[in-house]
Amino acid sequence: MRNVKLIVSYDGGDFNGWQTQPGFRTVQETLESAISKLTGEPKTRVNVSGRTDAGVHAVGQVVNFYTASDHPPEVILRAVNANLPPDVIVRDAAEMPQSFDANRDAKRKLYRYVIHDGPVSDVFLRRYAYHVRNRLDVAAMKRAAVPLLGRHDFHSFETNWPNRMSSVRTITHLALNRLGDWLWLDVEADGFLYNMVRAVAGTLVNVGRGYWPESHVAEILQAEDRKEAGPTAPAQGLFLMRVSYDR
Amino acid sequence: MRNVKLIVSYDGGDFNGWQTQPGFRTVQETLESAISKLTGEPKTRVNVSGRTDAGVHAVGQVVNFYTASDHPPEVILRAVNANLPPDVIVRDAAEMPQSFDANRDAKRKLYRYVIHDGPVSDVFLRRYAYHVRNRLDVAAMKRAAVPLLGRHDFHSFETNWPNRMSSVRTITHLALNRLGDWLWLDVEADGFLYNMVRAVAGTLVNVGRGYWPESHVAEILQAEDRKEAGPTAPAQGLFLMRVSYDR
Repeated sequence: MRNVKLIVSYDGGDFNGWQTQPGFRTVQETLESAISKLTGEPKTRVNVSGRTDAGVHAVGQVVNFYTASDHPPEVILRAVNANLPPDVIVRDAAEMPQSFDANRDAKRKLYRYVIHDGPVSDVFLRRYAYHVRNRLDVAAMKRAAVPLLGRHDFHSFETNWPNRMSSVRTITHLALNRLGDWLWLDVEADGFLYNMVRAVAGTLVNVGRGYWPESHVAEILQAEDRKEAGPTAPAQGLFLMRVSYDR
Repeated sequence: MRNVKLIVSYDGGDFNGWQTQPGFRTVQETLESAISKLTGEPKTRVNVSGRTDAGVHAVGQVVNFYTASDHPPEVILRAVNANLPPDVIVRDAAEMPQSFDANRDAKRKLYRYVIHDGPVSDVFLRRYAYHVRNRLDVAAMKRAAVPLLGRHDFHSFETNWPNRMSSVRTITHLALNRLGDWLWLDVEADGFLYNMVRAVAGTLVNVGRGYWPESHVAEILQAEDRKEAGPTAPAQGLFLMRVSYDR
């Protein structure tokens, strides 16, 4: 069996998230069907770097799957894309060593959260951003975000759920930029808790609106209590940009 | 009666064009309903700078309408937007002299046609661009477009339809730009024939693909025969950007 890695981009707006669920349109099921149609193998199962929730987008999601078919990667790329609907696309395909595991081997992930604070919503990008009516103070948000960098217990930014053993993660990169009425928050970490980026975005928006002082973010982090942080910002602003591996 | 001008932006993807047609979702009917809901006047009729076809988008469409209501323009802007679905938005509202007519007084319109020639389609912008699989030769397209500038009979670029008396129009500005895998063709003229920008785009794409020599565009113009030009490029790449008035 060959081990094939795919880099996949999808518009999450019309999907009920990544993971297959009977009766719902999911990215996993859509992708697996398109691969099976090419290989003729009925039970193709893709292994993903990490699930994304309903409405969340991906620019560079990574999966791997095993196949007995001998199509070269460039043929897989073209043929799977021909079988996919317009809101999912395979951007790259490569053959990997047998041991490669898109989930276990992922070293870092980069998420981007997009906010629009123009006076009226943007009809073209409304499905890809969180529209906030108040003009946000980006300088205050940037300063407020500094304590989040590094290794911390992010339990305050984790939706209650069957959670992982530990909520300690390391944010290796955190940047907020503005261009006109558009803000994007980039967060790279060695792993993410459930709804973590959306809780960080909702918290920083509360600072940007002037509801909370900048210093409040450090207090939220120390509280280790989800009730202290801001709301979970809407799914449509969130993009999984990139998953990094050692090789 | 007060004469109110609106600048309107819409995502044409889910509309059956501008003009009201029973049984179809149209921008005109959607906007008129939203205004009527505010003013309480049941028969509000908006007068548009020019209709757009099914699937065509607008960044800066212009309309005017008469109303007896005394809401100031900023209230009209907010209240009409509150009554509109997410794919139409009023960007600006202003009170105008009685004589202002969004259609008759329009001096120039600027349309933009967006083309994506990346190897795979873009899942986020697929509804806002024409995806061409061949890499286009933009330098050749630019040179080929030069003869279109100025005053000409554009009958070769006009879909047969109950047409205007004359197919002579003046293109005052024509520019083609590339940024990465994205091209945009800007065409400003004193008026446009039916499907004119889409026929120009389809023609230039044939040059960019290498199907036609650059010199062929001048020949098409001289032929005054629609069959000589390239195909009508898809509606989803076309945006009405701006309508200019003397005052």
